[in-house]
This record gives sequence, C-alpha cells and structure tokens, in this order.
Amino acid sequence: MKAYSELSREELLELKSQLEAQYEEVKAKDLKMDMSRGKPSKAQLDISEGLLGIIKTNEDAIAENGLDCRNYGILTGIPEARRLLADMSEVPEKDILIYGNSSLNVMFDAISRSYTHGVMGNTPWCKLDKVKFLCPVPGYDRHFAITEYFGIEMINVPMLPTGPDMDIVEKLVAEDEAIKGIWCVPKYSNPQGISYSDETVRRFAHLKPAAKDFRIYWDNAYSIHHLYDEPEKQDVILELMSECEKAGNPDMVLKFISTSKVSFPGSGIAALACSENNMKDALRHMGYQIISHDKLNQLRHVRFFKDIDGMREHMKLHAAIMRPKFEAVLDTLDRELGGLGIGEWTRPRGGYFISFDAMEGCAKKIVAKAKEAGLTMTGAGATFPYGKDPKDSNIRIAPSYPTEEELKVAAEIFVLSVKLVSIDKLLEQA
Amino acid sequence: MKAYSELSREELLELKSQLEAQYEEVKAKDLKMDMSRGKPSKAQLDISEGLLGIIKTNEDAIAENGLDCRNYGILTGIPEARRLLADMSEVPEKDILIYGNSSLNVMFDAISRSYTHGVMGNTPWCKLDKVKFLCPVPGYDRHFAITEYFGIEMINVPMLPTGPDMDIVEKLVAEDEAIKGIWCVPKYSNPQGISYSDETVRRFAHLKPAAKDFRIYWDNAYSIHHLYDEPEKQDVILELMSECEKAGNPDMVLKFISTSKVSFPGSGIAALACSENNMKDALRHMGYQIISHDKLNQLRHVRFFKDIDGMREHMKLHAAIMRPKFEAVLDTLDRELGGLGIGEWTRPRGGYFISFDAMEGCAKKIVAKAKEAGLTMTGAGATFPYGKDPKDSNIRIAPSYPTEEELKVAAEIFVLSVKLVSIDKLLEQA
Repeated sequence: MKAYSELSREELLELKSQLEAQYEEVKAKDLKMDMSRGKPSKAQLDISEGLLGIIKTNEDAIAENGLDCRNYGILTGIPEARRLLADMSEVPEKDILIYGNSSLNVMFDAISRSYTHGVMGNTPWCKLDKVKFLCPVPGYDRHFAITEYFGIEMINVPMLPTGPDMDIVEKLVAEDEAIKGIWCVPKYSNPQGISYSDETVRRFAHLKPAAKDFRIYWDNAYSIHHLYDEPEKQDVILELMSECEKAGNPDMVLKFISTSKVSFPGSGIAALACSENNMKDALRHMGYQIISHDKLNQLRHVRFFKDIDGMREHMKLHAAIMRPKFEAVLDTLDRELGGLGIGEWTRPRGGYFISFDAMEGCAKKIVAKAKEAGLTMTGAGATFPYGKDPKDSNIRIAPSYPTEEELKVAAEIFVLSVKLVSIDKLLEQA
Repeated sequence: MKAYSELSREELLELKSQLEAQYEEVKAKDLKMDMSRGKPSKAQLDISEGLLGIIKTNEDAIAENGLDCRNYGILTGIPEARRLLADMSEVPEKDILIYGNSSLNVMFDAISRSYTHGVMGNTPWCKLDKVKFLCPVPGYDRHFAITEYFGIEMINVPMLPTGPDMDIVEKLVAEDEAIKGIWCVPKYSNPQGISYSDETVRRFAHLKPAAKDFRIYWDNAYSIHHLYDEPEKQDVILELMSECEKAGNPDMVLKFISTSKVSFPGSGIAALACSENNMKDALRHMGYQIISHDKLNQLRHVRFFKDIDGMREHMKLHAAIMRPKFEAVLDTLDRELGGLGIGEWTRPRGGYFISFDAMEGCAKKIVAKAKEAGLTMTGAGATFPYGKDPKDSNIRIAPSYPTEEELKVAAEIFVLSVKLVSIDKLLEQA
C-alpha cells in the first residue's frame, strides 16, 4: 500500500470518488450499529445465567459465618465475598471493603468523601482554593466527568507504551501540593489496552507527592479480562498496594474493582481495596451512608464463581466471545489502513477497547462521518478531560456489544470514514 | 395501682428490696436479648422466600419494555419498578427515581449533593457559613447522624400527637434562611408511631421558608407497615407532594421510600419521589455517580409482588407477625407500669417502635440497668440530635427482632429496670 501522503492530488480525488460511492452504498443500507461503549454483549451475559437463581431458599441465604444475608448487618461485606474480590484484586481479605453494584460509584464516593470530609484528617477539598488531578490521556471519560463535576482542575499526562509518562508525574506531584490524585486504569487501559510496566508501577509506589492527601486512584477494571490464554508480560502487572507498602507509602493508593464485566453490568458487586488507615476513613463514611450493602448479591457471586479459579475459568468464556470481535476489527484496520499513514491503532491483549489515532484534526469528522452511515462511535474528545483532545485525533473503538457480523460491517464503515476524512485533510493541505 | 410518688420512703425501700430480688433472679439467667434496632425477625424474612430465586433464566431478565435487565441502561429504574414504588409512595410513576438497596443512602446522597453542588442552582451548602436543620424529637438517630456528619446545626422541634409542633416549624423556617430542611417520618413515626394529622401535612405544604433551597425530607419508611387491618385515621395520611403542588410549593419536598422492611433489609430497592425540577438535580448527580442501579433486583421485586395490591397483602403477613409482639410489650407495660406515674408510652398502629418516656433523668440509668440483666435497648439519647435528650427521659423500644417468648422476658426486664431506677430517683428526691 502506498501512503496517502505520497499520492498526487489527482490520485486522491480519484480515490475519493471511489470511496464516496462505497460510502453512499453503505449509508443507503440504513444500518444502526453501536461501538460507543464498553457494554457486554448478550452472549456474554448468557454465560452467567447460573448466577441468577442460585439462591432460591431461605436456607441458601446463610453466609459461611452463619449470618443471615437477608437481614441487616456486616458493613464490610460477607467474608467469602471479601475473599473472592481480594483474590481478584491481589490483596489480603482484610483490605477489601465491599460496596454496591458499581465501582464507578465507589470512585465517585471516594472523591465526594474527600471533597466533603477530607482524606485521613486533611482539609476537605471543598475548603481549598484549588484541587488538581493528573489525567493520563487518552483515558476513561467517566473518570474525567467525576473530577470535572467536583470542580477539580485536570492536567493531561501523556500515556506511553509503558503507562503514564512517569517523568512528568513525578515532577508534578512533587512540586504542586494542589495535586491530590491521578486516575489510572493500570491493566488493559481504557482506551489503549496498555498494561503498566513493572518500572511504572514501582515509580508510582515511590512517588513523593507534596500533598499528604495525594492518592493514586487505581481503577483495576480489567484485572482478569484477558483476551488470550497464553500469558505475556502485559497480562500480569505488579500489585501496587504491596509495592507502596514496601516503598513506605502504604496509604497512597485506593484500588477499585467490580464484577460488572464478569457477571452482570449493574448487577455485579464492587469493592474498594486499600490500607487500614484509608479503610477507617471509608468505613466511617459508609457507616453514615448505609446500614449494609446487598449481601444476597454478594453471596450469589460467591456461590456461582466459588473462588478466583472459578472466576478465571469463567473469564475464558468471555475471552472466547470477545477475542474474535477484537480480531475482526484489527484485521479490517490492518487490511484497509495498513501502510496508508493515516492512522495508528493499539493491539490490546485484554480489556474492552482499541484506541485509534487519526491524523491531527480528523477525529471529530471521522466520528460524524461514521454516524451519518449508521455507526455510533464514542464521541471524539471523550477520552480527554473536558472532552478536549488537543490534537482532535483519538477515537475509542468498543467492539464488545455488536455481533461479529455487525462488527465486520461496522469496521468497514469506520475505515471508510477514516479514509474519506483523511483525504479531505490532505487535499486541504495540498 | 398506687402511684410511686404517693408511697412513703419505707414503702419504697420495701418495694425496692423485693424488686431487686426479682432482678437478681433474672440476671442470674444470663440472658442475651436485643430490642435496640428496627430489625425484622427471621419469620418476617421467611415470607419473602419466593422473591429470592424468582429470576432464574436469561429470558426471565427482560423488562416489560424489552430491556435486558442484566446489562447497563435506564438510570431512572425500569418502568414496572418505578410504577410499583410510585404506588407505594402515592405519586405518579414519572416522579419516582429508583436507587440502590437503601433509602438511608438516598437521603445521605440528597444531603451530600446539596452540600457539594447545592439545591437547584442555589449555593452549595459547603460554601455557606451556617446550615441548620429542624429535627422533630424524639426522632430517628440515623437522620440526625447524617446532618451532624455534614456539620449541619440541628434544632429540636417537639413532637405533638399530631406531628411536629407546626407553630414552631412555621416560625423558624420563615425567619431563618440558614434552615435548609426538616427530617420527618410522617407515618408511624420513629420512635413514637405517630402519624401526622391532615392539618400538619397541609401546614407543611404551605410553609413559607426564608431559604429558597429549604426542603422537607419526608422519610416515608412505614407507608404500608400497618399492624391492624381495620383502618383508623392514623393509618392514612395526606400525600404531601400533591399538597405542596396545590399550595404552589411543588419543589419543597423530597420523599424517600424503600422495601427494606417489605422484602429484605439490605437487599430491597429504594427510591426518591420528587418534582420534575428536583429530579433533574438528582438525575444529573446520579449520571456522574453510576451507570445504572441493580435492575435485576428491581425486576425480582415486581415479579414477586406484582403490584401494590400484592404488596399490601404481603404486609398483612408481616402484621400478623409484628402485632403480637407489639401487644406483648404493651400488655406488660400496661400491667406492670399502669398507674404508677413513672412512665408513659405510645400505642402505635404501625411501624417498628414504641416510644417510652421515663421520669426525667432516668432513661440512661434504665437502659444501663436493662443491659446489666442481658437486654440491649437503643441507647438513651439516641432519639435526639447529638445523642442528647435534654430530659434524659426517652427510650425507644424495638420489638420486631426477638421472638414472642423472648419479648415477654425482655419486657419484664425492662419494666423491672424502670421500677428500680424510678424508686432510686424518688428516694433521692425525698
């Protein structure tokens, strides 16, 4: 394939008219497809059917310690569920606090609690003139939305193939006391699918923040969400809490986890993993907030998965559904855009997204072009704080929800949109 | 029965030594009973067994609008669950926003949201020098705990047999802009079991608060929690939202409800009922907080109860379990304390509590005395803001959790404790 930049004006115009014809053809089909969100497909939900009715009788509802899960009690969550999520989080059971159905809500709570009551005795953020967060970009729009909602200033930090650019992170947190946190998706990151290197994790553990209440907000959303069975380096990352402890920074991290993409989105269980001191903060808050979380649903999850091995086996079934979808998209990108010099993309080994970088100034137009042909993508800019991608280049591709057949068509629409918008840009530049 | 105040010192001493012998006898039995919290008994939980496994298959998980309840979606809750909780709250379906498993959490969220982001465009409470709440007393300790946690100053308002003293409420809210809310349990109030009169509800609807962001926090916890089938006046209260609308104050109330004491505490569903404007506030906040609540649990509740009639029938089964317990306690109080002039108590027709007023300065000692003999009561003072009952007189009795047999013994210990502590007081005064 010849790179588009090497084509003459005439060749570009000729190509454009061919592609426009193809585009009109697809558009005429009046399709409606969605690659915008990390939403599991029906096939993925079906494999957890056994969880639905696994607690049927009053006798089924008793936890291993004899507690009746139907009644009030145990603010921290039932022991067997704490153990399961501890294993999923690679921390001891005592470091797990189980919440409701949503890790996003656990993160929101952590920010809201810091805003209203402060972190471990420090000044509540609402009483400070300025609070800032570091945001590795591209990143997860819902993280950025929470910090923006609380008026927290967000500072972009570039992602490298090894994780956030730690030279920048180290420098900024050391010199600015207003920086209170950094959002991280350390494994199969959203949207690039990058897993942080050992060095990155160690450098996180050794940070010397100016702010005593600085915390690393470690959203381990895809901890066991592999696409391939044969482990490679990026399928394993260092466990940050124990690294922080070794580094003498035991309280510097809050880890978040849920089973939303293991069992059911919205009907899973979620948890916070943290040090004893952080847990005191969280538990005190929770004690005012609620009497106890849904222990029946905690028990359902333990009865269904049994243990972390059962959960890992279950994730292989997810992988068998997800892998061909990722590959279908990647194959189309390789085949249709390889060597054209009009875009770059990641090849994740897990998680829910592929990240695509178009030529500068093209992302918004590509997403609009795809939309016109019936394909909804994540809004361009969504992967950056304030929805502003400075280069207007990054597009998140979420292949989980459509069927494999739909995905092939969707990927075609996408590459067609990329090509058309890129040609226009090149023609303008010429 | 002769009132204790009419007994001579000698008679009191004689009585005291008899009662002490009885007390030592009970104490020697080394019992362990709990009348401290409004916790349903095992028998009550058992009647909801059918709810546990009612969704068994993937096909079962589809809502009436075709939505797959296993996946993300519908921030407001599924229509059929909104309808059920709307009927329970006596408001239209559109005015219901379903949350997670806890109405306490919905209330906490409402306060936290007002603190961080303000009420409908008004200044966030965290930016104000002073925020105050009116607290009808005695009241619910967890309400007071939330307001205290957010540094809100609480002002006691006496409860009358018709509800809060509205002369005081009207005066205070009209003259003090710092007063942003009032906590109410309008039906079978916690702990007195008082239902607000029509006049009280209408006066609430016609309040003219100085603060534009004043709201009535209407915790309708016991809306259908009757003890008796034959309705009396106090089993029906006026619906406040429609009264507020009629009075031209449509946005002045937030209503809270849950099925915690209908199905399972901790595994029920909870909702906010409010006007369109208030809902915009709540929904905006929720949109940052969570992707969707547990719709499978919403669906379980609808499938099990079917509709409000089914729910009312179900509540009759609860009443059949609760009624004898209330009566056992009341019978003992009547028989043992009637006419003695050392205490007064309420006779609720619903809810979870009986309220007992001892002689001034005796509540703490009575609770300690009962504890010494193996009976845990709600801490004296808990029914007042800051845990401070100015008269040290009110004790909340929660008869739901113990069995009927246990309750009879528990009630004996209680009255024995009341008698002994009262005699000491009278001897001191003499």
